[in-house]
Amino acid sequence: MTRRVTGKGSVDLALIHYPVINKNREIIGSAVTNLDLHDIARAARTFGANGLYVVTPYRDQQILFRELLEHWLEGHGAQYNAMRGEALSLVRICDDLEQVRTRIAAERQQQPVVLATCAREKHPVVWSYGAVRQKISEGKNFLLLLGTAWGLAQEVIDAGDGILPPITGSGSYNHLSVRSAAAIILDRLLGTGAG
Amino acid sequence: MTRRVTGKGSVDLALIHYPVINKNREIIGSAVTNLDLHDIARAARTFGANGLYVVTPYRDQQILFRELLEHWLEGHGAQYNAMRGEALSLVRICDDLEQVRTRIAAERQQQPVVLATCAREKHPVVWSYGAVRQKISEGKNFLLLLGTAWGLAQEVIDAGDGILPPITGSGSYNHLSVRSAAAIILDRLLGTGAG
Repeated sequence: MTRRVTGKGSVDLALIHYPVINKNREIIGSAVTNLDLHDIARAARTFGANGLYVVTPYRDQQILFRELLEHWLEGHGAQYNAMRGEALSLVRICDDLEQVRTRIAAERQQQPVVLATCAREKHPVVWSYGAVRQKISEGKNFLLLLGTAWGLAQEVIDAGDGILPPITGSGSYNHLSVRSAAAIILDRLLGTGAG
Repeated sequence: MTRRVTGKGSVDLALIHYPVINKNREIIGSAVTNLDLHDIARAARTFGANGLYVVTPYRDQQILFRELLEHWLEGHGAQYNAMRGEALSLVRICDDLEQVRTRIAAERQQQPVVLATCAREKHPVVWSYGAVRQKISEGKNFLLLLGTAWGLAQEVIDAGDGILPPITGSGSYNHLSVRSAAAIILDRLLGTGAG
């Protein structure tokens, strides 16, 4: 109901909690973080993204975060700060990436282009931010994969259609939080006032 | 030591915890948030900002966060994840805005242009992102004021030389977290790969 409906293409985000990697590049499942959902949902709502899919196979995590969403959408939180509910209404909880794809395809009647985001550029298909902006304006839908912990597992990156370039500044340091990376990516793809 | 030294101008950030406003637009002091420091310092380090000034007059908060910084700069945290120390080395704790200005002026031998950031545009002097980028390339220094809680108190906005435009997307919703706003602003002013 608070969704943006336009003739243009759309951007959905999937925040992946399994499979991701830890510091030693081992495959792990991470815990869902309250603040990730708030920060990324608020940025998604600001820039008109379509949905924020929280991907975790763990039932206890799914139950916990469905309760948290209810608090902000219908419970005391909705009275306290309606703007949070407006943002968090974009959040959907899914078991895995396949479920996300199926839901988006059913909703948009089109398979999205799936792009992974990662801090290192090593993929045969790299979409520039400008190219994605252009395709959105032409009606294409995109699903962007965001990794928690130390980043997306290679199998998730490989399951997509390409990657977005890493976000870098003047030097080689690019250890952004997933919250900061999501905000910058949404601004680059959907923002209007950078000039 | 990890600071960026170039012939160009610089950007410093001040994260203000007093005076800020609450939901009812009353003046309050907010608690320093661990994650604000981590997220904003990591973005500052990525984009080559000069320093992140944490502004709070409360001694107990100052002591607590000096200990936290020590953990990451010299303690166990430095061994566990050296990248965090590299980012958090940009953090300085100050009592008030005057102290921040004095430290920057002493360090850079130049008074910075002080710009407030806020979600609503109502100030006689609004600097575009493009104009600030241009001035940075010409050697000008900027100090950007970021508000915690529900935003900067009017007196802090008035104490600066102007404001940056609010960050907006396609609609009227622009309730970003200060962490997301800081990341986007740094990317707009110092980022290189948005094309």
